Amino acid sequence: MGVGDVSKRILLGRKLRSSQVGETLLSKKIAFPVFASDALSSVAYAPDEIFIILSLAGISLYAYSWWIALAVAVVMVTVVASYRQTVHAYPSGGGDYEVAMVNLGPRAGMTVASALIVDYVLVVAVSLSSAAQYAASAIGFVSGHEATVATVLVVALTVVNLRGVRESGAWFALPAYAFVLGLGTMLAVGAVRALSGTLPPAESAELRIVEAEGYEGTLTTVALVFLVARAFSSGCAALTGVEAISNGVPAFRKPKSRNAATTLGLLALVAITLMMGVVTLANEMRVRYVDPNEGERLVDAAGRPVELEQQTLIAQIAEGVFDTFPPGYYFVVLATGVILVLASNTAFNGFPVLGSILARDGFAPRALGSRGDRLAYSNGIVFLAVLAVVLIVAFDAEVTRLIQLYIVGVFVSFNLSQLGMMRHWTRQLASEGDPAVRRRMQRSRAINGFGLAMTAVVFVIILVTKFLAGAWIALLAMGTFYLLMSGVRRHYTAVSEELAADEQDKVLPTRVHAIVLVSKLHKPTLRALAYAKAMRPNVLEAVYVGTDAREANRLVDEWDARRVDVPLKILHSPYRELVRPTVDYATEIRKANPRGVVAVFIPEYVVGHWWEQLLHNQTALRLKGRLLFTPGVMVISVPFQLRSSQAALEREERDVDRVRPGDLRAGRVRVDEPGGQVHGR
Amino acid sequence: MGVGDVSKRILLGRKLRSSQVGETLLSKKIAFPVFASDALSSVAYAPDEIFIILSLAGISLYAYSWWIALAVAVVMVTVVASYRQTVHAYPSGGGDYEVAMVNLGPRAGMTVASALIVDYVLVVAVSLSSAAQYAASAIGFVSGHEATVATVLVVALTVVNLRGVRESGAWFALPAYAFVLGLGTMLAVGAVRALSGTLPPAESAELRIVEAEGYEGTLTTVALVFLVARAFSSGCAALTGVEAISNGVPAFRKPKSRNAATTLGLLALVAITLMMGVVTLANEMRVRYVDPNEGERLVDAAGRPVELEQQTLIAQIAEGVFDTFPPGYYFVVLATGVILVLASNTAFNGFPVLGSILARDGFAPRALGSRGDRLAYSNGIVFLAVLAVVLIVAFDAEVTRLIQLYIVGVFVSFNLSQLGMMRHWTRQLASEGDPAVRRRMQRSRAINGFGLAMTAVVFVIILVTKFLAGAWIALLAMGTFYLLMSGVRRHYTAVSEELAADEQDKVLPTRVHAIVLVSKLHKPTLRALAYAKAMRPNVLEAVYVGTDAREANRLVDEWDARRVDVPLKILHSPYRELVRPTVDYATEIRKANPRGVVAVFIPEYVVGHWWEQLLHNQTALRLKGRLLFTPGVMVISVPFQLRSSQAALEREERDVDRVRPGDLRAGRVRVDEPGGQVHGR
Repeated sequence: MGVGDVSKRILLGRKLRSSQVGETLLSKKIAFPVFASDALSSVAYAPDEIFIILSLAGISLYAYSWWIALAVAVVMVTVVASYRQTVHAYPSGGGDYEVAMVNLGPRAGMTVASALIVDYVLVVAVSLSSAAQYAASAIGFVSGHEATVATVLVVALTVVNLRGVRESGAWFALPAYAFVLGLGTMLAVGAVRALSGTLPPAESAELRIVEAEGYEGTLTTVALVFLVARAFSSGCAALTGVEAISNGVPAFRKPKSRNAATTLGLLALVAITLMMGVVTLANEMRVRYVDPNEGERLVDAAGRPVELEQQTLIAQIAEGVFDTFPPGYYFVVLATGVILVLASNTAFNGFPVLGSILARDGFAPRALGSRGDRLAYSNGIVFLAVLAVVLIVAFDAEVTRLIQLYIVGVFVSFNLSQLGMMRHWTRQLASEGDPAVRRRMQRSRAINGFGLAMTAVVFVIILVTKFLAGAWIALLAMGTFYLLMSGVRRHYTAVSEELAADEQDKVLPTRVHAIVLVSKLHKPTLRALAYAKAMRPNVLEAVYVGTDAREANRLVDEWDARRVDVPLKILHSPYRELVRPTVDYATEIRKANPRGVVAVFIPEYVVGHWWEQLLHNQTALRLKGRLLFTPGVMVISVPFQLRSSQAALEREERDVDRVRPGDLRAGRVRVDEPGGQVHGR
Repeated sequence: MGVGDVSKRILLGRKLRSSQVGETLLSKKIAFPVFASDALSSVAYAPDEIFIILSLAGISLYAYSWWIALAVAVVMVTVVASYRQTVHAYPSGGGDYEVAMVNLGPRAGMTVASALIVDYVLVVAVSLSSAAQYAASAIGFVSGHEATVATVLVVALTVVNLRGVRESGAWFALPAYAFVLGLGTMLAVGAVRALSGTLPPAESAELRIVEAEGYEGTLTTVALVFLVARAFSSGCAALTGVEAISNGVPAFRKPKSRNAATTLGLLALVAITLMMGVVTLANEMRVRYVDPNEGERLVDAAGRPVELEQQTLIAQIAEGVFDTFPPGYYFVVLATGVILVLASNTAFNGFPVLGSILARDGFAPRALGSRGDRLAYSNGIVFLAVLAVVLIVAFDAEVTRLIQLYIVGVFVSFNLSQLGMMRHWTRQLASEGDPAVRRRMQRSRAINGFGLAMTAVVFVIILVTKFLAGAWIALLAMGTFYLLMSGVRRHYTAVSEELAADEQDKVLPTRVHAIVLVSKLHKPTLRALAYAKAMRPNVLEAVYVGTDAREANRLVDEWDARRVDVPLKILHSPYRELVRPTVDYATEIRKANPRGVVAVFIPEYVVGHWWEQLLHNQTALRLKGRLLFTPGVMVISVPFQLRSSQAALEREERDVDRVRPGDLRAGRVRVDEPGGQVHGR
């Protein structure tokens, strides 16, 4: 057969499509809730964090809160503008990681990947801790058990995602709209009531705040600036989740990039409106808010501590705005809690996709790269959940302390991604002639340049204000993941060098000596003998390893009676050991003929249930594992399917059709409308 | 090749011997401590139990204690005499199980096996709980933490046995002799001092015992008989462990059976002497002893409760006998504690041997039958340890309550074994003509008959007096194990029927269609292609499953460049899935030619460390697993050994030479003296 025979058929693609996919491509009105919930849900805690930091110096600094929120909004506009460039330039869903990897090389890529892993863990920890806080606002007895509630939520999400759930389902779309609708209505009603002078003050309006230790009296300018900067960097928690859309482009309907960019713009508009509205109304209603952990700093006008379970900002506003309509309050609090849970679900979906991309690039175990590897998928999800629970328990589900770890990772990827995009445009410009296109590119580069400048400044502010407060933990974790990934990559590189083909690799074995391992003369053995004969080896013999002379004689008699025309060799093994005599025999054959190859046929029967697996084939498995370490040997499993094996096949069929976390954002979607694309890329 | 060519060579036996074994065959003076520690250690708790039960009715019944001990001694003499018959008739080490199986059939065999499993668990639980009691006697602060100490001891023994330890080592022999020496000296000194009138009373001699609820005042005759019967059946705990020698015959030097019988006789002599001595001295020194859990029933002469950490019988005697020589007290208590630990170690060694025999007979997973299966071995040991810890924790390490569960199982096997031996002699007599031999056999049958009558009576006493006190738990556990074993056996039988060869099984496949799976063109692939070509299949093609057109093209170019003379077929797979397209393709080939066979060659590279395993071959493993379920397919692993694979081989070499629990009593021993036997059987 010559080289010309090489066939390049594309096969089986069509057949797989129908069975393998469960998700659907997303219209903008579905994509918005699915991908925006992470970013939108930040509104549930970011304003609170601004107020908490400012209140360290008493309520006098609350005047800054509006300006700080505005600064956060400006940063968000810049970042969203930058990501709109990214979704056009990198529509494959690789997001920040791909941008950094392609433009800045593997070190930057691994740095972004480390930051993303840490972020995914923190999304889960922060969102569910915050959700537990909202639960405590609405349901009195939850208060004090936030860590337990958050942990239970992690476990529930883990179970749901291990079973598989369609992210594009209505369950995921409705709550986000409910949240926007509820919060929007609250802000509108609040604005009208404020203008008409009927807006009541918040429940905490009459309270005073005792300055925290070190912040008593008039602050120095430096201390003031530092405190405002701290409040600003905490407020930047509002930006978390913005990047989710850039990882989900393959899930959009065509034109994918344009639709993703539009959704991004919409997200920025809604998020900024909600955040500014919350901060404005909170000031208007004179909400007083301190770290929930330092509730004793809230005192009444006479300076006496008050007995008050402090509610979150949004809950306090809703309580005031809907003072005559309690269902409105409960609707807002519930919708906020639910969207926080959904936000952490995006991490469960994003994490496997990141894992599979890292596996493709050799930074993570290859098993993570195959959707078919259920075990790797499950391990990834459990890994994420365990780390999140560790954080929740270690920080007792205190959002304020978790936030300190959170944003540093987000801004690491923002910065590297912006830098990468600048390189991208510069490279593109070098080869582009058309002046119109060049102008567009230059504009894009300017946007990313401005974004980089902005996010770099914010990053420095975050590092300075948060490092000792907890950011060091996140950085340490990122460093660990970085080292792990580079270790994995080094290993794969070393192996691939050791495996590289050279010229001597085409030598053919001179002869094949086949042995069929026999334990009994039953159907599997006869099938293995038949298959072995069909292969026409140079030598063929059956080998029986036995302890007991009587059993051996019985086999020999049966062999004679059935007139099996393959010679039977009996190896004596004390203590019922099979593996070692077989390996030794194979090694001996090979030694006698170093240029030949030994083909070991192992008859196996396959069963369908896990408990049957325990009862069978353990020895065959060990033997195969051991023979693989023996040079010049190939191991041939000849299976015989027992009736019960059907059960395993059916189980597997069911499993293949199941939706897996991340299917949607990797573009593994079902086509159920004209114009949809099948493979996503 | 004709049937006449069948070769029946015995190979490799000699080679294995040297490397595979670590234990040595035992002289009587080593066998005695190794196998007798279990039975001897019963002296540490059996007399205590007699006193505890009698004290329910106050000290008035203590007068019976000596007679009860004598009755136990008579039972022991009978049982030992019976076992001396067994070790001659069944020298293979199968013990009670083998006797019941051969003579009474599988149901009896499974019953004995269930009883033995329960007994092994209870040996560990009882011995280590008792050891913890002795530790509490000698070391004050242990008192009250007996369950913790016992659990720690279980864990320590588990670790030691997982690592592997030579039972025949001096560490195992010395403590048993120290125990016999210490206890013997104590009894001798005590006897001399008693005769000379200088023996002091025990620390508890002046105390009174309050009758337990329901035993106040004069007992009715029925109640008295019942209480004495209860004390007797608790005292029968002294018989536990007697059967150990019958399971260890293969480990003795020749003449094995005679040596084992002599050791049995010696054991009975020593055990009875020690037990009678302890009971006699305890009475002489007026020891008062109640259930340690009911310490409040011990009162002083005025009827006031006393503050006394009650010590075990042996400890109280040692304290009195060695009142002027404290080291003697500590020596006795320490030696007793150590021999109890060794006694539970015999369970760790006996359990794997039982498992391997059960596996051979199809009552347990076959993996347990192979010494080479480290995993099965470890699982068995961990299983034993976990059950023992559950019992220790559930019963708070209270020996008295654990004893209630213990002896019922022991006497189940005694009875079935005696019955089996009677059948054995009857059957032998039927075919024996020599009058001298017949007389010997008749005498043996008489001994076993007497033994059966005796143990049957004891069994009924135990059932009546212990059923509600806890024996029902042991019986329930035995029933569970019985059901599990019969389920396993049924499954194996069903499978073996399904596998039985019939006439149509000799049909040869008409053609072999071979496919070599290719992921890259590296050394493993080239080797797989070479091996596949050497097999000369009817059709040979290479198959690449890919997502990415660019990667596929690169492979095709390389294929052309290297002039590989095997056609390359490319299967398109969305989402980087390998398994399903491959299986579908193999199925298609098979469908096109139902009488042919598909040979799937999988190039694999093997690595040596567990973390490397995580990074490699997961897909190959899944693929092989899945292909085995596909009819008409054989799976061929072509391994390529990376340099690091050497590490795994070396690890395995070390592991093979390691001593495993049970090696000694299964007769897997090293020959280091003339006259020793190599294979044990």
